[in-house]
Amino acid sequence: MAAAWQPKTPDYAQRVRESFAKQRIMALFGAELVRVEPGLVEIRLPFRPELTQQHGYLHAAAVTAIADSACGYAALTLMPAGAEVLSVEFKINLLAPAKGDAFLARGRVVRPGRTITVCAGDVVAYGADGETVVATMLATMIQVGARTEGDRA
Amino acid sequence: MAAAWQPKTPDYAQRVRESFAKQRIMALFGAELVRVEPGLVEIRLPFRPELTQQHGYLHAAAVTAIADSACGYAALTLMPAGAEVLSVEFKINLLAPAKGDAFLARGRVVRPGRTITVCAGDVVAYGADGETVVATMLATMIQVGARTEGDRA
Amino acid sequence: MAAAWQPKTPDYAQRVRESFAKQRIMALFGAELVRVEPGLVEIRLPFRPELTQQHGYLHAAAVTAIADSACGYAALTLMPAGAEVLSVEFKINLLAPAKGDAFLARGRVVRPGRTITVCAGDVVAYGADGETVVATMLATMIQVGARTEGDRA
Amino acid sequence: MAAAWQPKTPDYAQRVRESFAKQRIMALFGAELVRVEPGLVEIRLPFRPELTQQHGYLHAAAVTAIADSACGYAALTLMPAGAEVLSVEFKINLLAPAKGDAFLARGRVVRPGRTITVCAGDVVAYGADGETVVATMLATMIQVGARTEGDRA
Repeated sequence: MAAAWQPKTPDYAQRVRESFAKQRIMALFGAELVRVEPGLVEIRLPFRPELTQQHGYLHAAAVTAIADSACGYAALTLMPAGAEVLSVEFKINLLAPAKGDAFLARGRVVRPGRTITVCAGDVVAYGADGETVVATMLATMIQVGARTEGDRA
Repeated sequence: MAAAWQPKTPDYAQRVRESFAKQRIMALFGAELVRVEPGLVEIRLPFRPELTQQHGYLHAAAVTAIADSACGYAALTLMPAGAEVLSVEFKINLLAPAKGDAFLARGRVVRPGRTITVCAGDVVAYGADGETVVATMLATMIQVGARTEGDRA
Repeated sequence: MAAAWQPKTPDYAQRVRESFAKQRIMALFGAELVRVEPGLVEIRLPFRPELTQQHGYLHAAAVTAIADSACGYAALTLMPAGAEVLSVEFKINLLAPAKGDAFLARGRVVRPGRTITVCAGDVVAYGADGETVVATMLATMIQVGARTEGDRA
Repeated sequence: MAAAWQPKTPDYAQRVRESFAKQRIMALFGAELVRVEPGLVEIRLPFRPELTQQHGYLHAAAVTAIADSACGYAALTLMPAGAEVLSVEFKINLLAPAKGDAFLARGRVVRPGRTITVCAGDVVAYGADGETVVATMLATMIQVGARTEGDRA
C-alpha cells in the first residue's frame, strides 16, 4: 500500500540518509538504514549487550528508538524540499520480549498531510526461534521548516 | 498524591535499585536513579553528545527511555515481593526540543492494580533557559512473576 | 492474517452477539454487528444527524465507540468460555472528517494473550466521495472473569 | 497551573459555548458544559441507561466523548479569534468501571502551541461510593481556520 505514495522530491532517499547520519544515538546503538521508499523506511539493529534491560533482552528504549525513527523518516520521504520532520507523539505496544540476534523496524505512512502525517510501525525480532513481532507503534509526525502559507493538517 | 500509596514490601526501593542496575542501556546512557518513593521514581540523565538527534538535542529515544523506566519502576514500588514489571504500552507527547544540560524523568502511579498499573510521567530539561517540560507520558504496566499461576500477558 | 487465529470455543460469535446486544449505547447509535470471525469483528454505523459534531460530520465519539467495540469484540472471539473483555486503554488517530452515509469499523487482533490482547482497528466512511479511512486505533484489551483466581486489572 | 494560561481573546468562553451547543451528540448524551476557564474546561454527564455497556455502567464511548470534548475545548480557550480545534489523536486509559450517578470530565492544557496543543483530561464518577477517577486521557489537538502565516508547532 505504501508503494502508492508519491514523493514530492526526487531526492527523498538522500534527504533521509543525510538526516539519519546526523543522529548520533543511532550510531551509538549500531542501527542502520536498510530501506527507503516513498512512505516506507526500514531500520535494522543488531543485538548488542550494551542495549539490554534487566533480563538480557533488547531494552524497550532501543525497540522504540528504531520504530520512532522508521516512522519519522517514512513521513519525511513524502515531504517537500527543505522540510524536516518531528515526532509530535507516538504510542507503542510491546508485544513480546525483544529476544533475537537482530531487529528490523518498519515504519510506513498511514496518511500523509500538509502539516500532520500519521504513521504505523512494527519491530520484528530475528533469532533462533524465527521471526517474532515484538512491538507495534502508531505515531503522529509534523512537518516543520518548509511551510510557506496557511497550511492545514 | 503519590505519597498516599502504600508499598507492599519494606524493601521496595532496594528492589527497584537492583533491577535498574541490571539495565545495561541505562549505564550506556549515563542515567541514574535519584529518587524512589512509593509510587514515585525519578531518573536523571546528564546531556551527552552521543545521545543526540540531527539537531544536536537529546534524542527522543533517550527522553522516552528515562520516562518509561521511571514509570515502570514507580509501578514496581507498589508490587509484592517477587514481582517484576513490564511495559505493556505507553504513549509519549514530545512537547519541546530536549535542549539542556540535564534531564529529569519523573514517573508516578496513577492507579495501581493487581495486574495492571497505570502511570504518568514527565521529563524536564534543565539548562541556561531554566526548566522546560519536554515530554509527557501515559503508560500501562503489568505485574509478572509473583502471580500464583504464572500468568503472563 | 486474522484468519489464522484459532478460537478457543465454537460459540465465539454467539458470545460476541449476546454481549453486543446488551450495549444499550450501540442501540442508541444505531450500530450493528456485521461480521464476527476469529480475531476479526466489524461494526457498521449509518449516519444519523443526532450523532454529529459542530460541522455536521459524525462526532469522533461515535467513530471511537465503534472502533473500540470492534477491537474489544475481536479480542473476545479468541478468549475462553466465561471470559469477558475490558478495554484497558486505546489510542485513536482521527485521519479525516467523518463525512459519509455509513461507517464501518473493523477491529482485528494483533497479538492475543492469556491476560492482555492487543488489537488494531480502522474506521472507513462510505459516501458520495467513495471510501475514506477516517480513523485508526491501537488498543489494549484485558480478559476478565474466566481466570482461576479472579484476578482483575 | 492551568490558571496561568492567557487567552488570546476576551470571548473565549463564548466561543466554546457556541461550538459545544452545535455538537448534537452532546445533547443526545445529556452532557453539559459546566466550567470554561483559560486552558481548563469541565463537562458534566448525568448517568442515563441509554448510554450503558453490557454490565449497566456508563459505556467507555460516553466517558471518552466527554473527556475528548473537554480537552478540545480547553485547547480552544487559548486559540485566536476565528480558530477552530480538531482532535488529531488521543489515548485514554480506563481505570475503573464507570459506575456512578454523574460523571465530570476535566480537560486542561498541558502545552499550548501555534499549531499543536497538548491536553490532559480526567473523568471522575460521583456516586454512592464517593468519587472515583474512572479514566485519564492524553490528547493532541490542532488549530485550524485562523492561520495567516507559516505557523510552527
